[in-house]
Amino acid sequence: MEMSIDPATFLLSLTSSIEHWKVQGKKGVWIKLPIERVNLIEAAVKKGFWYHHAEPNYLMLMFWIPQSAHTLPANATHRVGIGAFLINHNREYRGTGVWKLPTGVVDEGEDIFAAAVREVKEETGIDSEFVEVLAFRQRHKSFFQKSDLFFVCMLRPLSFDIQKQEHEIEAAKWMPFEEYAAQPFVQKYELLSYIHDICKAKMDGKYTGFSPVPSTSYSVQKSYLYLNTSTAPRRQSKL
Amino acid sequence: MEMSIDPATFLLSLTSSIEHWKVQGKKGVWIKLPIERVNLIEAAVKKGFWYHHAEPNYLMLMFWIPQSAHTLPANATHRVGIGAFLINHNREYRGTGVWKLPTGVVDEGEDIFAAAVREVKEETGIDSEFVEVLAFRQRHKSFFQKSDLFFVCMLRPLSFDIQKQEHEIEAAKWMPFEEYAAQPFVQKYELLSYIHDICKAKMDGKYTGFSPVPSTSYSVQKSYLYLNTSTAPRRQSKL
Repeated sequence: MEMSIDPATFLLSLTSSIEHWKVQGKKGVWIKLPIERVNLIEAAVKKGFWYHHAEPNYLMLMFWIPQSAHTLPANATHRVGIGAFLINHNREYRGTGVWKLPTGVVDEGEDIFAAAVREVKEETGIDSEFVEVLAFRQRHKSFFQKSDLFFVCMLRPLSFDIQKQEHEIEAAKWMPFEEYAAQPFVQKYELLSYIHDICKAKMDGKYTGFSPVPSTSYSVQKSYLYLNTSTAPRRQSKL
Repeated sequence: MEMSIDPATFLLSLTSSIEHWKVQGKKGVWIKLPIERVNLIEAAVKKGFWYHHAEPNYLMLMFWIPQSAHTLPANATHRVGIGAFLINHNREYRGTGVWKLPTGVVDEGEDIFAAAVREVKEETGIDSEFVEVLAFRQRHKSFFQKSDLFFVCMLRPLSFDIQKQEHEIEAAKWMPFEEYAAQPFVQKYELLSYIHDICKAKMDGKYTGFSPVPSTSYSVQKSYLYLNTSTAPRRQSKL
C-alpha cells in the first residue's frame, strides 16, 4: 500500500478483494501500511484485520479468511544482548559501572560476535577480537513482555588504553578479576556467580564455549554457526 | 489508553500534555493503543508519534520530546527456532519430511529446552528429555527482515513408538544415522554437514554442548543459563 487512497474507497476495495480471495481459496492476507497511510488502518480493522507487527515507519496487518485457526508465523519474540569479558595479560578484568561487565543490545541484523566487539569499543575505546560465547541465558517477560537472550562473551583485548564513553559510563578500568568477583552484587546473584566460575575456569584453560564459524545455509547469505570447536571433528581445519 | 475518546479531543489533549511534559523536562512518551482505539492512531501520528511495535491487540507508539536523537529501546529483533535430534539405542536417528530434523519456532515466553521437547512430541508423539544445545546459528533478514537464532538440540527419547502429527508431517520414522547423513541435501549444505559432524561426535561421546541450569537473576523470575557443564567447575553438584 504505497499509493494514496481515501479510507472509504480502500474499505470498498478491500471488501471486494476479500470476497475474490475467498472464492480463490486464499487463506492469509497481509497488508503493509507505511506510516503515511495511517488513515487506512481503521478501515482494515473494521474489516476484521488485526496487527501483526510494526516498525517505526510501517504497520503490518493480517487477516485469516477461513473459519479455522490461523497458521500465520509469529512476530519476533526475543531481544538479544551481550555481556563482554576481556582479560589482559595481568589477568585483570575490564569492568564498568559498579564494575559490571560491559553489556549492550545486539542491533537488528548484527552478529553476536560483532556486537560484543562494538560494545567494548564504544564503552571503553578498547579494540578486541571475539573468542567465545561462554554461556547464554534466556529470560522471559523482559522489555515489553518480550523474551531475551543474553550471551556471555569472552574477548581478547588488542589494545589496552581505556577511553571511556562520555554518556553511558561513569568509569571504566582494568581491575583484578578477584576484586570484581568479590563485589557483593556478584556474590549475591546466582547467575553472576555462575558466570564468575565460568570465567575463572576459562582463564585457567578449563572451560570451552562456542566459537562462531561462517557457514552457508539454504540461502546464499552467510550466517554463523556457534559450536564447541575444541571437540568438533574434521572441519577444524577450515576454521 | 483504555477509555473511549473522540480523535479531535484526543489530539487537543495530547497537544497540551506534550507542552506540559516539555516544561517538566520529560523526554520519551509512549502511547499504547488497544486495537479498539484504532481511531486515535492518526491523531498521534499527526502529533509526530511513530510506531514502536505492535501485537495482535494493540499498537505501541512513541515520541521523543528533545531535539536530540532518541535513546528509546528497540523492539524484539529475533525469532528463535529449534531443531531436535533424538538417538535411540540402535543409534537410529529420528527424522521427518525429506528426513529433516524436527524443527519449530519457540513460542513467546517458552524456554528453548521446553520448545524442543514440545515439538518432538507434537510431530512424532515421542516423549523425550532435553540433553544439550549442540550449537546455534544466527541468521539475518529472515521472516519480515528480522534475524533468527536456531538452536540445534540433542534430546534423549523416553518413548519409542512414533505417532506422527496429522497436518505438518508427511512421514516420521527412526532411521540409521548414516542413512540420514547420506542424503544429498545434508551433503550439499555446509551448515548441515557441520551439524552432522557434531551429532556424530556427540554419539561417540566426543562433543560437549551447553546444558540448561536454572538460575535466579536480578528479578525473582526463574531463568535458565545454558553452559558447558562438563567443564564448568564447582556448581556441578547443584545441577
